[in-house]
Amino acid sequence: MVGVDLDPTRLEQALRLGAIDDIAPDVAAGVAEAEVAVISAPVTATVPLVLEASRFGPDSILIIDVGSTKARMVAEVEADLRARSRFVGAHPIAGSERQGVEHSRADLFQGRTCVLTVTDRTPSDRAERARNFWTSLGANVVEIDPVTHDHQLALTSHLPHAVASALAATVPPELLAMAAGAYRDGTRVADAEGPLWSGIFLDNRRSILEALSAFEGELDSFREALIAQDRDRLAAWWDRGRGRRSTYLDSTEEPSKRKGGP
Amino acid sequence: MVGVDLDPTRLEQALRLGAIDDIAPDVAAGVAEAEVAVISAPVTATVPLVLEASRFGPDSILIIDVGSTKARMVAEVEADLRARSRFVGAHPIAGSERQGVEHSRADLFQGRTCVLTVTDRTPSDRAERARNFWTSLGANVVEIDPVTHDHQLALTSHLPHAVASALAATVPPELLAMAAGAYRDGTRVADAEGPLWSGIFLDNRRSILEALSAFEGELDSFREALIAQDRDRLAAWWDRGRGRRSTYLDSTEEPSKRKGGP
Repeated sequence: MVGVDLDPTRLEQALRLGAIDDIAPDVAAGVAEAEVAVISAPVTATVPLVLEASRFGPDSILIIDVGSTKARMVAEVEADLRARSRFVGAHPIAGSERQGVEHSRADLFQGRTCVLTVTDRTPSDRAERARNFWTSLGANVVEIDPVTHDHQLALTSHLPHAVASALAATVPPELLAMAAGAYRDGTRVADAEGPLWSGIFLDNRRSILEALSAFEGELDSFREALIAQDRDRLAAWWDRGRGRRSTYLDSTEEPSKRKGGP
Repeated sequence: MVGVDLDPTRLEQALRLGAIDDIAPDVAAGVAEAEVAVISAPVTATVPLVLEASRFGPDSILIIDVGSTKARMVAEVEADLRARSRFVGAHPIAGSERQGVEHSRADLFQGRTCVLTVTDRTPSDRAERARNFWTSLGANVVEIDPVTHDHQLALTSHLPHAVASALAATVPPELLAMAAGAYRDGTRVADAEGPLWSGIFLDNRRSILEALSAFEGELDSFREALIAQDRDRLAAWWDRGRGRRSTYLDSTEEPSKRKGGP
């Protein structure tokens, strides 16, 4: 495994930790003999790297990315004949707010969903190899077109990130000593990197604005029940969220998802 | 330690686990020789239990509760001369979405904030004993009047609970397999008990409605930056939440708060 990064200290650390076997000075050198190139960069920086890998890699190369938004990016890659004959968009849903190779784990993708954004233009042999790649890492592979992917992820990931940040900012600093576990957990991903998330939000803004409206609709139901002092409606409202959370827990086999914090 | 509960199986379990030494059939018997009575019940059920404990306990008894809302409850207790001479409102901020004695921990209050809602009418000897009680369990005791407490907790606990439930309900069941860590963490407390939370929401509805408006103001800023496609404003918005989260982490010594999930 050969690593390429703008930051040499990260590469040294990755080498020391055994996450990579070798370091290449740039993408061209890194992909020269590569079977697979994994482009892991902010969504705004991904396309040029995919094009570069397709230019300098062998004809047989499989290029995948891991970005959280897909529609614009896949369309841009597919506008390049050479790149699109080697590329499969991928999004393993297994991120965290933490950065850096020191947080890498061999079982990071075990039991997680990995979306492959296969389109009419994706070569079937590359799609097959991409499926095998992610399956070998333990991921549950699903295939979804890029536009649907972005629409769904707006609800399942991008909105929850925006909510975490908004919630974090709502509590004034002088009250943070009184913050309950609900604040601690609800704001965890607010610690993620800003430029990365600005890029995702802008890339998928239409779907995110729709998801935001749906979320505000839920808040409106809560407000109305509260203003009406209607205990039954409030209880029914709460139970709907509780039921959804319960369905979510049932839908994952992962023990770590079942465990709440203290 | 003597336990009293409506549910005999809970009491048997508490006895078996060593959380209590004995079982009493009712409050009157339970408090007959008590130095301290801890009333742990939904906020809507607390006042009658405090009055009962004050009626049947020895003159020297200290009665505390652990409820999440205080203004109405403390006022109702203080309307009773006998009860108010024995009572100190308490709120240890150390809850979780989990119920039952099987989730109890000896270090549950270690390093956590415990609010005592001391008023002009709280006897100073009882306030002193309540401070010692919570300090002996490792809590950081702060004294706040009941109205201010409720106003602050609307932001630091009640709003985050409502947000978790609204977020949980926003993602349709068929998309839950695609839910990211942000959904998992952001909805954890949506699993808490409904009647308990309906009671808290109604008890503190005015402050919660204010907190909700402040939160929606944060969402509005996000929406405006997104519609304007203003990357700098979006980045600044994100950084504000991230900064608050970081201040929160710095303000707690607890290692478990520093650890994010995978």
